[in-house]
Amino acid sequence: MSSWTGSPSAAAPAPAAVRPREDRAQADRMALSAATGKGAHIRTEDVCAWLAERRRATAVHVARIPFAELDEWRFERGTGNIAHRSGRFFTVEGMQVTEDDGPRREWQQPVIRQPEVGILGILAKEFDGVLHFLMQAKSEPGNTNPLQLSPTVQATRSNYTKAHGGTDVQLIDYFVRPDRDRVIADVLQSEQGSWFYRKSNRNMIVETADEIPARDDFRWLTLGQIAELLHEDDVVNMNARSVLACVPYRDTAPGALLSDVQLLSWFTGERSRRDVRAHRIPLASVRGWKHGVEAIEHEEGRYFKVVAVSVRGGNREVAGWNQPLIEPVGAGLAAFLVREIDGVPHVLVHARAEGGFLDTVELAPTVQCTPGDYAHLPAADRPPFLDAVLDAPLSRIRYQAVHSEEGGRFLNARSRYLAVDAATASLDPPPGYAWATPAQLRALTRHGHYLNMEARTLLACLNATAARTRGGL
Amino acid sequence: MSSWTGSPSAAAPAPAAVRPREDRAQADRMALSAATGKGAHIRTEDVCAWLAERRRATAVHVARIPFAELDEWRFERGTGNIAHRSGRFFTVEGMQVTEDDGPRREWQQPVIRQPEVGILGILAKEFDGVLHFLMQAKSEPGNTNPLQLSPTVQATRSNYTKAHGGTDVQLIDYFVRPDRDRVIADVLQSEQGSWFYRKSNRNMIVETADEIPARDDFRWLTLGQIAELLHEDDVVNMNARSVLACVPYRDTAPGALLSDVQLLSWFTGERSRRDVRAHRIPLASVRGWKHGVEAIEHEEGRYFKVVAVSVRGGNREVAGWNQPLIEPVGAGLAAFLVREIDGVPHVLVHARAEGGFLDTVELAPTVQCTPGDYAHLPAADRPPFLDAVLDAPLSRIRYQAVHSEEGGRFLNARSRYLAVDAATASLDPPPGYAWATPAQLRALTRHGHYLNMEARTLLACLNATAARTRGGL
Repeated sequence: MSSWTGSPSAAAPAPAAVRPREDRAQADRMALSAATGKGAHIRTEDVCAWLAERRRATAVHVARIPFAELDEWRFERGTGNIAHRSGRFFTVEGMQVTEDDGPRREWQQPVIRQPEVGILGILAKEFDGVLHFLMQAKSEPGNTNPLQLSPTVQATRSNYTKAHGGTDVQLIDYFVRPDRDRVIADVLQSEQGSWFYRKSNRNMIVETADEIPARDDFRWLTLGQIAELLHEDDVVNMNARSVLACVPYRDTAPGALLSDVQLLSWFTGERSRRDVRAHRIPLASVRGWKHGVEAIEHEEGRYFKVVAVSVRGGNREVAGWNQPLIEPVGAGLAAFLVREIDGVPHVLVHARAEGGFLDTVELAPTVQCTPGDYAHLPAADRPPFLDAVLDAPLSRIRYQAVHSEEGGRFLNARSRYLAVDAATASLDPPPGYAWATPAQLRALTRHGHYLNMEARTLLACLNATAARTRGGL
Repeated sequence: MSSWTGSPSAAAPAPAAVRPREDRAQADRMALSAATGKGAHIRTEDVCAWLAERRRATAVHVARIPFAELDEWRFERGTGNIAHRSGRFFTVEGMQVTEDDGPRREWQQPVIRQPEVGILGILAKEFDGVLHFLMQAKSEPGNTNPLQLSPTVQATRSNYTKAHGGTDVQLIDYFVRPDRDRVIADVLQSEQGSWFYRKSNRNMIVETADEIPARDDFRWLTLGQIAELLHEDDVVNMNARSVLACVPYRDTAPGALLSDVQLLSWFTGERSRRDVRAHRIPLASVRGWKHGVEAIEHEEGRYFKVVAVSVRGGNREVAGWNQPLIEPVGAGLAAFLVREIDGVPHVLVHARAEGGFLDTVELAPTVQCTPGDYAHLPAADRPPFLDAVLDAPLSRIRYQAVHSEEGGRFLNARSRYLAVDAATASLDPPPGYAWATPAQLRALTRHGHYLNMEARTLLACLNATAARTRGGL
């Protein structure tokens, strides 16, 4: 390696320049895009018509089937895990979780395991001096509204190494080999820890100056346009919301209730005091779940089912296939309580343990649950703040929409996302909760394993609300 | 919870004030302490005499013993794992590691498992307007120089819940229940991934204004004094170095070769492309290792041994005990190549995989290895840059000292830490390596799982070098 490290007699080093660690102009460009409600390519009010047209052109037929009809998938001998014959994609296995930091809790459940890191990438480009983002109208079999706005690219490693036997993932090269000078965001973020075992994806925004050929199922939109669409039900898909949470907006507020050091210290304390351990077990051995012909379900009918579907048509990489999916038994709820402190908006974050997280807890919405799972319980046993959210009058709802979770893994998984004004809520919340500003949460999305998927969706929605009400962030 | 969330008629909220997210005065106080070479309590040149005096007062006798004489520890039936009879402290188990992102590598090894999060805490206080840090003269059985400067508190959960049956860990309350307004640093950091399975500790610096009674084995030192002592061999222990790497100094440089977004994107790419999987296996089943009466060792004599020792005397929490330790077979080497770019110092970091890391890779020194493990190999098979470091003339050594790794788990584990000037090294390093400024690395120490233990030691040493040569950072 001596030639690499060089010596005084070696050739002169390449010209180099130190640059500022933060590109402040970048944040201005994000704010301009968020303040631009009129895009260069398609009017916001025409996006839904375009999606409807694409839906007709790429109609997908999804039907439940018995597990026995899963031709490329099988229950593995011994473990009973559900796996693809190729060994690729994902498996459905079992997980044993133990929480031992208060009253000991222990449970077993099915879980999706997919150890490879996928790419969720949005391509950005300036038109008329304003950044636009290339969104794809993409169909996913599990979504109630199957065709939604997705990132430019959402690809598992299996996708882009062509395990599907299908077409190339379009535009993937911008993300597999990104131009270092044009990366806007690039971070590994977790997926749902209740359904996935330690899954994370690479969330990326990369700019280009290249000419990108127009395609029927792609449209360039400003952040302001996407903000409008985030107020619609089932239009912006989960992966897009996750990436949009990572847009590097500037913090224009004078500060926060807790300094960054204080917020991180609180979080470190939560991670330290929680004793959550999870490990994989054979699916066949999972206690408390019934294995049927068409579903693996909880004995009391709670939480979710593992089911199988066949899929035909659509614009997926291959023409038809079947696969297992996870189907929640009820609609989810994810809500931030919000309030202003000295005029600065804050949200109440919860340090939430989910069995599939890589590291104990992540920051979650104030309330995140399937209310139906708790309907039978007395108020004292229901999640903190659930009733405060359910009972909030419309006048205190600052944001509300129903969004779908990932339709490639989940069937009919929808959650109501809410921001509920709690103007007089205590500034000294109970253990496990802390007030943080959206800007603090945005700063944390530069790093993985801080905000969980649901918190990232809500952060993207809060960004959207700010863009709409103030003409920019 | 409705009373908590309040209503317009509820009592007025407590007075609150938004504060700046960053406390800029804090960084000035760190710089002042680093520039202060003369402490209020003990002269730097007297610290070694004090340590020598404490060494005499608390002499420790450590002797190797056969495993059979480990009275409180045993090989568990079935697994062969080494565990304490109480079920506490730690276990020695097996680990299977697979790396599958290039040529497939697979190996098995013994590993220490200690899932609980310990606390490494340094208490800070102003004297004469300058922050001082309370360092403890603490004995650890595995260290060649057993008594070194350690954090104010280094406590496993077993310690402070008194599993030792010994005395209270002194001053622990400042860290278990920190005063939120006085936290300077608080972050979970990883331990050695080659020897520990997914171990992390809570690294904390907390300030106090309280009167702290003087004690024989504690001294208040400025950062400038500690910087001097970091230039001595075997004086500042591993845990202290780890915490000192988290001191929040200000970045006074105009920038860096890579912006923060670029550096994080590079790191995300490294984590994404690496496919490293590790899981625990029974110690009895580990292939390639011999189980002897006094040691479990690698069949070719490489890497490390698992051994047992008895310990008598010293200032540990109990009077005598015995325990297993991991003993490396050779001295380690950890070195940063450093160079200035546009007058700004940079170090070459390596995205290094270690089987025990929670998440694939962390940032490591340019070179981190036990050179003896590679002495038999041709140059092409030796770690990149190893020869560049070993062959560097003294004129290019910017920092050099031998430090001990944790003496509570490792026996005679010492590494030479180096910063080697590579003024003409290429600015376009090979895959897996990137140039970063010390300030960028310091910013990353706010978060866990970025810098590995060895990189944190070197960062603390670089901070110390900057303090010495410039009278402050």
